[in-house]
Amino acid sequence: MSKLTGKVLIAQGGGPTAVINQSMVGAVLESRKFPEVTRVYGAMYGVRGIVNEDFLDLTQETTHNLEQVALTPSSALLSTRDKPDAAYCAEIFKVCQAHDVRYFFYIGGNDSADTVRIVNQNAESAGYDMRCIHIPKTIDNDLVVNDHTPGYGSAARFVAQAFMGFNLDNRALPGVFIGVVMGRNAGFLTAAASLGKKYPDDGPHCVYVPEHAFSTEQFLGDVKNALDAHGRCVVAVSEGIVDEKKQPVVVGLTGRIEKDAHGNVQLSGTGELGTMLGELVKTRLKVKRVRADTLGYMQRSFLGVVSDVDAHEAREVGEKAAQFAIWHDIDGSITIQRTGNYSVDYRIVSLEEIAAKTKTMAAEHLTAGGNDTTVEFFNYARPLLGSGFPTSHRIRALTVSKILKSGN
Amino acid sequence: MSKLTGKVLIAQGGGPTAVINQSMVGAVLESRKFPEVTRVYGAMYGVRGIVNEDFLDLTQETTHNLEQVALTPSSALLSTRDKPDAAYCAEIFKVCQAHDVRYFFYIGGNDSADTVRIVNQNAESAGYDMRCIHIPKTIDNDLVVNDHTPGYGSAARFVAQAFMGFNLDNRALPGVFIGVVMGRNAGFLTAAASLGKKYPDDGPHCVYVPEHAFSTEQFLGDVKNALDAHGRCVVAVSEGIVDEKKQPVVVGLTGRIEKDAHGNVQLSGTGELGTMLGELVKTRLKVKRVRADTLGYMQRSFLGVVSDVDAHEAREVGEKAAQFAIWHDIDGSITIQRTGNYSVDYRIVSLEEIAAKTKTMAAEHLTAGGNDTTVEFFNYARPLLGSGFPTSHRIRALTVSKILKSGN
Repeated sequence: MSKLTGKVLIAQGGGPTAVINQSMVGAVLESRKFPEVTRVYGAMYGVRGIVNEDFLDLTQETTHNLEQVALTPSSALLSTRDKPDAAYCAEIFKVCQAHDVRYFFYIGGNDSADTVRIVNQNAESAGYDMRCIHIPKTIDNDLVVNDHTPGYGSAARFVAQAFMGFNLDNRALPGVFIGVVMGRNAGFLTAAASLGKKYPDDGPHCVYVPEHAFSTEQFLGDVKNALDAHGRCVVAVSEGIVDEKKQPVVVGLTGRIEKDAHGNVQLSGTGELGTMLGELVKTRLKVKRVRADTLGYMQRSFLGVVSDVDAHEAREVGEKAAQFAIWHDIDGSITIQRTGNYSVDYRIVSLEEIAAKTKTMAAEHLTAGGNDTTVEFFNYARPLLGSGFPTSHRIRALTVSKILKSGN
Repeated sequence: MSKLTGKVLIAQGGGPTAVINQSMVGAVLESRKFPEVTRVYGAMYGVRGIVNEDFLDLTQETTHNLEQVALTPSSALLSTRDKPDAAYCAEIFKVCQAHDVRYFFYIGGNDSADTVRIVNQNAESAGYDMRCIHIPKTIDNDLVVNDHTPGYGSAARFVAQAFMGFNLDNRALPGVFIGVVMGRNAGFLTAAASLGKKYPDDGPHCVYVPEHAFSTEQFLGDVKNALDAHGRCVVAVSEGIVDEKKQPVVVGLTGRIEKDAHGNVQLSGTGELGTMLGELVKTRLKVKRVRADTLGYMQRSFLGVVSDVDAHEAREVGEKAAQFAIWHDIDGSITIQRTGNYSVDYRIVSLEEIAAKTKTMAAEHLTAGGNDTTVEFFNYARPLLGSGFPTSHRIRALTVSKILKSGN
């Protein structure tokens, strides 16, 4: 099949990541190499910018500035929480047709893949030749078929470094510390809290993810065990933990229900879950020093903590999107496949395989009790954090004999 | 005066910082060079470890491990929130005397300086020759006489990088974002939120510190102004903001009062202030997307964000403590003096000058309305963040003409 001549349109959807601009810049620069590509447009504010025809002409942006943008976290083309229905997707297609867009690249999670799938159907039904590619992105790491997703490695690195610090702080000033991590359905990011553990008594001492039903009694028992063993306890918990009835724990503890445009309970941007769990520990275990922090938006947007492995792969999935679409004339979703320890390759799969599906943690990544991660998880996730990962060191000097209290 | 022969005792107090171990290691390694120093002891858990005689013999720790510990955040000798009274200080002195401690170094804030002052008095009253040195440390940057304090630069860098990310995130998904920063009496750390601003519409768009009485109406007006101007708003606010009656705003909004061992209201380790301010914006300004994050303990313990300037100075104040005490036989507190742009030198001043006193932000560091920082603050604080500070980049490509909505 001869290559389609026309425009490329690229957009970014959903929550930002530290490396989402790598994917955008990869797709843009690779697309600009093809003479068939007459223009590369970027839609502002994701799909909303498409229906509003809010386009920037990225063909005329300098390569050097694009390379700088690639190093900047958060969606440079801005984003949206809109989740297009059939009518919205038909609008997207109409705009693509009007602008002679022949290659549509959308960077996002499983909802974005679903949008690409429907737009692709619209184009097919209309007999309009347009390649539609979904470029994976999510700190939640919850796309099926993929070994992991761009954005996860850098967010996981941030969470791991944060908990290394929480653990040191908690060791210096003992008590119970609860750190609340992003993750609605999948616990991958919360599990990353344990990736910086080094010494045998390092925290987090217990880890709670949405994959296991959260039990208040198990939680209090786990905290008590850590206190008995170490005189302190660091807890990592997903914002999305649910009880046995699959109800978010934050709803059960606070009674509050605020829903977003997708009909999901708001979990981020509030410290309530941590505060409520902290209150439980204070009142039930009579622990005086209890602190709870919610890691919040820093996990996905912090400037200065990026996994080089993640940045590299994010760049490549963008480049691959352009290559599969323009060289090979294929629709689909770019996926990351692990081929060695540690190496990856990229495959394009049908949009149906990815769209609107959610992957959760493998059973082997969690202990039987569901309250800690396993060495299998460590081996899976550690390479994704990249090089130059910091480590902590302790003093190992000998104890001095007491003089005044020598009887102790 | 001939040099005193005997032991060195060093301890770390209060909240950890990213570079407090630089000071400890600087003092230990410098002390070990003097033949008059028979041993270098480290007290575990600050002053509590002194009265309990929980000492480690740092003389036998390897230099290479100490160098690694210096790069690790949080107090390697562990810490305490104990604030010794006269009887407690007398205990400290008794233990020093029993162990033939002739040089006592205590790393901490203004409370720690006061402890050193009282122990010094005990020694003088008893006619026991012992040099007592306070080594400055606080992320709050609130020690008098000092241009700034070790620990502040790294914490300020973390806060600045966090708000650069918050700003990018808020630009991609607009709404109101509130970030709550540590700081009970001084707003230096909160003010650092503005140090990464680059583009004219970058946030934080308003900054609230304890130095100015917080007014709910002014706050809501400021947020509304930013929304009108930019369609979004990023707020930086100190956990310690107070109303006109000097009552912490978090107490007024929640009615909760929990006090620590020092009789202070607990401000950190809870997300309540952010949650309450967010509720205000939602209900009063009818803004739908409001998010609040509390930066929490990451500000002082995060692994991997360190200002090289801060690390260098923290190391030097430790070394200087040993030099002033052992070479020059002087008691006092080490201070940092700015000598150029940017260069510093160290002076030792009397313990009375530092002890139990608090510095707050200079009037010229804040705008007249008290809701933003000035260029004077930028010039003061920016050098403290050190080298390699990240920056953000935007796409500047041309807008494309609309086709379907060309009438818009």
